[in-house]
Amino acid sequence: MKLSELFTKTSKQMPSDEQSVSAQLLERAGYINKEAAGVYSLLPLGLRVINNITNIIRQEMDAVGGQEILMSGLIPKSNLEQTGRWESFEALYRLKGADDKEYGLGATHEEIISPLVKKYVQSYRDLPVAIYQIQDKFRNEIRAKSGVLRTREFLMKDLYSFHADQEGLDKYYEQVKEAYWKIFERCVIKDKTYLTLASGGTFSKYSHEFQTETEAGEDEIYVCKSCRIGLNKEILEGEYECPECKNREHEVKKTIEVGNIFKLGTKYSKPFELNFVDQSGKPQPVIMGCYGIGLQRLMGAIVEVYHDEKGIVWPNNEIAPFVAHLIELKVESGRPAELGMEGPKGKGQNTADEIYNQLLEAGIEVLYDDREDISAGEKFADADLLGIPCRLVISEKTGDKVEIKNRSKDQTELVPKEELISKLRT
Amino acid sequence: MKLSELFTKTSKQMPSDEQSVSAQLLERAGYINKEAAGVYSLLPLGLRVINNITNIIRQEMDAVGGQEILMSGLIPKSNLEQTGRWESFEALYRLKGADDKEYGLGATHEEIISPLVKKYVQSYRDLPVAIYQIQDKFRNEIRAKSGVLRTREFLMKDLYSFHADQEGLDKYYEQVKEAYWKIFERCVIKDKTYLTLASGGTFSKYSHEFQTETEAGEDEIYVCKSCRIGLNKEILEGEYECPECKNREHEVKKTIEVGNIFKLGTKYSKPFELNFVDQSGKPQPVIMGCYGIGLQRLMGAIVEVYHDEKGIVWPNNEIAPFVAHLIELKVESGRPAELGMEGPKGKGQNTADEIYNQLLEAGIEVLYDDREDISAGEKFADADLLGIPCRLVISEKTGDKVEIKNRSKDQTELVPKEELISKLRT
Repeated sequence: MKLSELFTKTSKQMPSDEQSVSAQLLERAGYINKEAAGVYSLLPLGLRVINNITNIIRQEMDAVGGQEILMSGLIPKSNLEQTGRWESFEALYRLKGADDKEYGLGATHEEIISPLVKKYVQSYRDLPVAIYQIQDKFRNEIRAKSGVLRTREFLMKDLYSFHADQEGLDKYYEQVKEAYWKIFERCVIKDKTYLTLASGGTFSKYSHEFQTETEAGEDEIYVCKSCRIGLNKEILEGEYECPECKNREHEVKKTIEVGNIFKLGTKYSKPFELNFVDQSGKPQPVIMGCYGIGLQRLMGAIVEVYHDEKGIVWPNNEIAPFVAHLIELKVESGRPAELGMEGPKGKGQNTADEIYNQLLEAGIEVLYDDREDISAGEKFADADLLGIPCRLVISEKTGDKVEIKNRSKDQTELVPKEELISKLRT
Repeated sequence: MKLSELFTKTSKQMPSDEQSVSAQLLERAGYINKEAAGVYSLLPLGLRVINNITNIIRQEMDAVGGQEILMSGLIPKSNLEQTGRWESFEALYRLKGADDKEYGLGATHEEIISPLVKKYVQSYRDLPVAIYQIQDKFRNEIRAKSGVLRTREFLMKDLYSFHADQEGLDKYYEQVKEAYWKIFERCVIKDKTYLTLASGGTFSKYSHEFQTETEAGEDEIYVCKSCRIGLNKEILEGEYECPECKNREHEVKKTIEVGNIFKLGTKYSKPFELNFVDQSGKPQPVIMGCYGIGLQRLMGAIVEVYHDEKGIVWPNNEIAPFVAHLIELKVESGRPAELGMEGPKGKGQNTADEIYNQLLEAGIEVLYDDREDISAGEKFADADLLGIPCRLVISEKTGDKVEIKNRSKDQTELVPKEELISKLRT
């Protein structure tokens, strides 16, 4: 994509109403736009990152047998009354439409998926089943002040699993745990992420959160110095003792919850009478698990971990909106572009266009800063702010070579044009 | 995908509360699930079709320079007050959240896109710009009784374009019109679709609808027998005369609106003071156009056009959820599968598994009916209901060949296994 055609622009101005570094950088770089407190639009660059994250998550969900669907955002009041959440779910947006029909606006989808699965599951032979979606969620958050880390609307991957017995759930739960580690590994935050025990609800002592260490974190966890498992401060009773290894030595860390997995048991199958007939012919309630990841929050967490004073530093090509950021520097020889004069400048342009087309043909995703009348300094500053992993510079100085610089490093390297593609692929 | 693993099942029962054939078939075949009147979830097969349609639309929007974003579904009340639509937009769902903050739920996005573009467009050099999204929309429809053809929630592609002058809009409008024809051609409904003049609003005498002829259509259009342009009955005044060629001979057709394009002029740029500085340095309001397609409705329209008494007949591989529907028929020799006996049955299974893997390796999307204890009749009936273009049957009778049948034709053909892949690719 050519930067001259991208409709967004970077801004030097720090947004005055954003407290988190991730939202500040993502807004300044034009990845997101704030519509209201806790409400953001994804702009072209931001949508590219979210699509990259979505692809990773989709692959890992498919790998654990997840079947993708897309549930309605409107949840009929009667469904939510069946579980008591029409009254009790604080963060639920409620709305009334034609014929006085009332709906909750999808904040989580147990009340849609449970009756849906009831329609198709009758026997133990229909189990297990795992179903997920990637969908816009709405939550009436009282506190929405951490940028994209806590919002009133966000894309969420929610997976639900259905089992004939506790053993089946327990086994699948471990599989999803592993899938989550793979996702966070591919998002390059695994090393800063702690599996953390959190409140478990009716059917399980604990649920598990994946908590990523960062200054902007709203959560506080106690990490066991021996087994490295986290414990959410919210469930700490009395003095700390690791629930796993009974060790008392710990570190306190500020973290962001980037995922959570939960054994629901029969909490939602019972109200909907989601039963199956077991091998002996007896009806039994289906055992459920649920597994969530918020996509904008995950993007925000990555930026919280990977940035410097100049901007975002996307940690790999899989997440970054583009692999390469191609910059063409014009000769500032007092012959401004407006005069349309040929010469060294014209030549530089041709080479950059050429490289751009070569990269496109090779299938390498490239953002090409072809803007006229923009100084070298501004182009470099924008490249640093946008954070694309590999910066390529072409100028009179680079001759028939291309200057390569990794966003996270200081050194530059001159590479012959012919070697560029293979260099970028390593 | 193996049918034994797909969690949905087909149903012989006609849904009692669906009047349109498309919703009846899509529900019976397990493509969609009705959550409430006008509210549907997309199940695995339905999501595959919608993703196929989305890909087509995305390609054609990218081809006319559209930049994809994803706007928020929550639209602040103040934005909607600025255009007067907080009061006047009948189909708008309104909701109140924490701190008494009020939002409209995205039914269309002029009130988000206009202030967003204002942030980035200052000069004529920043124009034209075209921005689109594919997003869940919500509409408080009084009448929601035509299945997926008129719903309270649906995915919509909405494109907005921004121009420095009327000429620029007019030119781009024609480009999008062509892009729409390409979309409907790829969805194989072009021949039954009429460009139709409809109400134009403040800045244009007419807008244009793309109306597809079908019995289930809620609209009525007058099609000129000479130039084939349609006129929506809603704007017919007095006796019919073709607004284009002045001919009076016409046909009346029942249709579904599958797309519409609209010259907005300055209707939304003025309230948001979305201006640009022209070449002479004077501020001018930006000229806008908007262009919509409802995705579930488009899927429904295709099914309205392409079905028979047995089920759906997807018109091509690009739209269909799978290209091939592989059926393995067991020898019904009194040796039921439960006994786990080897012999002809076991052999048949091996061949079907083999073919399935070959198709997967060749990148051909295949649904494999590997279900045990299901009769040949039931498998054929399901294949007809699901409507996948190419049915492949493997049985003892087919020997080392595969029986191929096109869903829309009666003849079958026996093809040697080795020729199957190349046959499917033609």
